[in-house]
Amino acid sequence: MRATLIYGRGDVRVEEVPDPVLVEPGDAIVRVTRACVCGSDLHRYRGMEPTTEGLRIGHEFMGVIEDTGADVRSVKRGDVVLVPFLWCDNTCDFCRDGLHGSCRNGGRWAMNGLDGGQGEAARVPQADGTLVKVPVGADDPLVPSIMALSDVLPTGHHAAITANVGKGSTVAVIGDGAVGLSAVLSAARLGAERIILLGRHQARTDLGRRFGATDVIPERGEEATAAVRDLTNGDGAPYVLECVGNAPAFETALTIVRDGGTISRVGVPQYAEARLDFDVFMRNITITGGVAPARRYIPELLAEVLDGTITPGDMFDLTVDLNDVAEGFRAMNDREALKALVRP
Amino acid sequence: MRATLIYGRGDVRVEEVPDPVLVEPGDAIVRVTRACVCGSDLHRYRGMEPTTEGLRIGHEFMGVIEDTGADVRSVKRGDVVLVPFLWCDNTCDFCRDGLHGSCRNGGRWAMNGLDGGQGEAARVPQADGTLVKVPVGADDPLVPSIMALSDVLPTGHHAAITANVGKGSTVAVIGDGAVGLSAVLSAARLGAERIILLGRHQARTDLGRRFGATDVIPERGEEATAAVRDLTNGDGAPYVLECVGNAPAFETALTIVRDGGTISRVGVPQYAEARLDFDVFMRNITITGGVAPARRYIPELLAEVLDGTITPGDMFDLTVDLNDVAEGFRAMNDREALKALVRP
Repeated sequence: MRATLIYGRGDVRVEEVPDPVLVEPGDAIVRVTRACVCGSDLHRYRGMEPTTEGLRIGHEFMGVIEDTGADVRSVKRGDVVLVPFLWCDNTCDFCRDGLHGSCRNGGRWAMNGLDGGQGEAARVPQADGTLVKVPVGADDPLVPSIMALSDVLPTGHHAAITANVGKGSTVAVIGDGAVGLSAVLSAARLGAERIILLGRHQARTDLGRRFGATDVIPERGEEATAAVRDLTNGDGAPYVLECVGNAPAFETALTIVRDGGTISRVGVPQYAEARLDFDVFMRNITITGGVAPARRYIPELLAEVLDGTITPGDMFDLTVDLNDVAEGFRAMNDREALKALVRP
Repeated sequence: MRATLIYGRGDVRVEEVPDPVLVEPGDAIVRVTRACVCGSDLHRYRGMEPTTEGLRIGHEFMGVIEDTGADVRSVKRGDVVLVPFLWCDNTCDFCRDGLHGSCRNGGRWAMNGLDGGQGEAARVPQADGTLVKVPVGADDPLVPSIMALSDVLPTGHHAAITANVGKGSTVAVIGDGAVGLSAVLSAARLGAERIILLGRHQARTDLGRRFGATDVIPERGEEATAAVRDLTNGDGAPYVLECVGNAPAFETALTIVRDGGTISRVGVPQYAEARLDFDVFMRNITITGGVAPARRYIPELLAEVLDGTITPGDMFDLTVDLNDVAEGFRAMNDREALKALVRP
């Protein structure tokens, strides 16, 4: 089959790789009908050292079950399934605690011999735990919104949930990428009253307003801090959702958060250390968040996609064939596209 | 009057300074009957650059009201009062939220012309908000336990509260200083079932056991991590109370906390940056804590001191006269004393 490999900075190729086969009795083989390029894929696209072998890539996908191992009970050949960006058993103590990213029998795609999502098919371990059957066809108009549930919407939701956003909250969201816009949508869904979106790409911030942002701040750095404080009685926002993952974004989060407030990080950190100094201590700032347990949130969010309450698929503004996946990376990296769907 | 000044590393002196006088109508003058040396005072004792002028020092004290400004209503001449380690109005929005360290009209002792606690008297701003009247004499046997409410017990309590320790919790406490032992006592008080104390001074860890520690780990670094994990099914502790404040203690906290767990920092950080990397992110670790709102916690804790439920005064193992305060610093710095009372 064909699959995407990344060989280094800016070097994404589609090549022939072995077809997946069932290995464990809990496995399923999924023929991929849609995949996405993720903002976190771009971290490697921008900074990865060249390799001669190439690495499989992609962790957001959906498809049709082609085959199942002897132990699989919840899905069967022909079912349309959504695949969360981490696989998990959904039964261990960590999963029961809602911490699927720490599943005792789970892991990440495109690592340790597993397929990535950006290919024609994938072996899915722990199929009963991982996969979510969706009650629509593989080409249904709802597919883009369903695809957003693989990673970005649950990730934005995780930011809002771990920060404890609720009815009447004042929230600042850093970043107008797909995760930032998902955080806006999630905060609005949870009843936030004021949602301040920090972003400078008007097409994206306009979508952010449709998703519920009440204020948009295009400034960066100290000017952004001043603007947020102007909107919040000089105090900053009690809830800050950091949806970028680089060091300047985290520093902005520290300067716009209210004393006693919470910063939830859901952008994969591109730094090893960050400021946790006397100032952060005296202001009683809480740092939370982390990798989202998408599998935990999908049923609740899927129900609202299916009934039309939320339309996170509005974030997809480019669709490429698998053979053109490199163009999807390029367009997202150049900020021509917000989020790309890939069609094998 | 006499007061303590610090001139640099290891250089603590008692000198004549001006007597405090009422400045604002909300002020009170307190004649100090007891003060303490705090572990955070030792940070300067160990590392402060020499000065020619000396800095006032001390932030834990109690005493007798000598005079009050025209607006003071809650205390009067002759009352015995406990003084929290931060002063505050106890009425602003931050105080009402329980965040007295961010009081809009509060601040720290021994700064900006204010007296420190280690002297014969002090001007107390915002006396109605700051001071807590205690219903015992200035030489009552309960005085040491009351003095522990000025800072260390509320600080340990803050660690347990912000980490959300509750009935049945498994808690690890890093540090066997007065704050660490206070965190043990607080966790026990809140119903923690297992309290693992990391400390290597047996007299202190023995007191920790009396306060509620169920396990003591004298190892440090990787060996401490292995020992905590041995006690916790290999997973680490869901609640880690970091009561030291240096970089190795924070790193230990990161390695002994369970995925999805919380580290509460109440040791004043002696570092500017700390690890908040991909590992911390993937494990969904929350970092919380900060400076304690002692004023908020004192009424509840004082009631239990007065009725004998808790005896945090057991931590004091040295009493020095004010003229000998330098000996209190030395003994604590050399770990001969756990916590020193100062008698002006």
